[in-house]
Amino acid sequence: MATARDQIIETTCNLLEMQGYHATGLNQIVKESKSPKGSLYYYFPGGKEELAAEAVSHVGRIVLQRIQDNLAQVEDSAEAVRAFIRQIAINVERSGFRSGGPITTIAMETASTNVGLREVCYHIYNEWQGAFASKLEQGGMDAARARRIATLIIAAIEGAVILCRTSQSRVPMEMVSEEIYELVRLSP
Amino acid sequence: MATARDQIIETTCNLLEMQGYHATGLNQIVKESKSPKGSLYYYFPGGKEELAAEAVSHVGRIVLQRIQDNLAQVEDSAEAVRAFIRQIAINVERSGFRSGGPITTIAMETASTNVGLREVCYHIYNEWQGAFASKLEQGGMDAARARRIATLIIAAIEGAVILCRTSQSRVPMEMVSEEIYELVRLSP
Repeated sequence: MATARDQIIETTCNLLEMQGYHATGLNQIVKESKSPKGSLYYYFPGGKEELAAEAVSHVGRIVLQRIQDNLAQVEDSAEAVRAFIRQIAINVERSGFRSGGPITTIAMETASTNVGLREVCYHIYNEWQGAFASKLEQGGMDAARARRIATLIIAAIEGAVILCRTSQSRVPMEMVSEEIYELVRLSP
Repeated sequence: MATARDQIIETTCNLLEMQGYHATGLNQIVKESKSPKGSLYYYFPGGKEELAAEAVSHVGRIVLQRIQDNLAQVEDSAEAVRAFIRQIAINVERSGFRSGGPITTIAMETASTNVGLREVCYHIYNEWQGAFASKLEQGGMDAARARRIATLIIAAIEGAVILCRTSQSRVPMEMVSEEIYELVRLSP
């Protein structure tokens, strides 16, 4: 069963994904998580910043696990990456283009204004890239090239989420999945 | 000479790029643009939303022109795209990783919460993609493929700005420039 703390983090993750850091207030988190206000300060004495850092780390770990599990299911690395990106396209559409890119908004909002949150986001992007790079290396790519293509993959997914959400269409993400597939397939 | 209206728009563009829509208040715009408060409401009776839409359109046109001018300077389309992306890497670093991705944050912040601003962002992304697609077509690529790769280019640039700003490094954008170059070079 989810504890009160889990519930607060879960709600914060959803709000950060949908509307970002600045638009998300503690009152809204209290209300939507149905938590007593005292519990929020009890679990997160550092307030909104501490809570946001925990939420970003939490969703970062979940997504990392999802990347690893999904990539492991398909042997061919180009096909595995394409299948993963296509699934994101479907998920973003299913959410009514409200979700996708769980840390994108907060990463941009805080990159120039909050060192602690910036570093949490950096760490997560780095781990996600590592997961793709490992898969590419398993497919026989050398480590430096795998890291470079993994960086393109994370950048392209992050950017395509923005294009899907602004265009209310999953097509940009599907286009990205096809082109990344071509690139990985053609790369030694 | 810049008019008061130009000055307000310019300041708004900078603030939106650095910190996003929600963190940018009218008082800060008034203060940093050194405009009398009345002039802001005089020029933009629709307030923050109207001003943001104008600012996003303004910077969208400037970037579109820059894309077109830069791509026109290099004949080979793969090299032209790579040179353009490399220049972004340099610009992001020069800004102390505070700028880059002028509409990224506002696009994400408002995608699910403000139809008008979402549509302005959508329109701009579409125009930027069109400029890259034209260059690729001039290089002999068929229209559908050019559109697909142009979508990847815009997505990858948007995402790489996020990675550069969170990592305080221009390397992610440079990696993206190399991989996009490879892809365009290898594509019929």
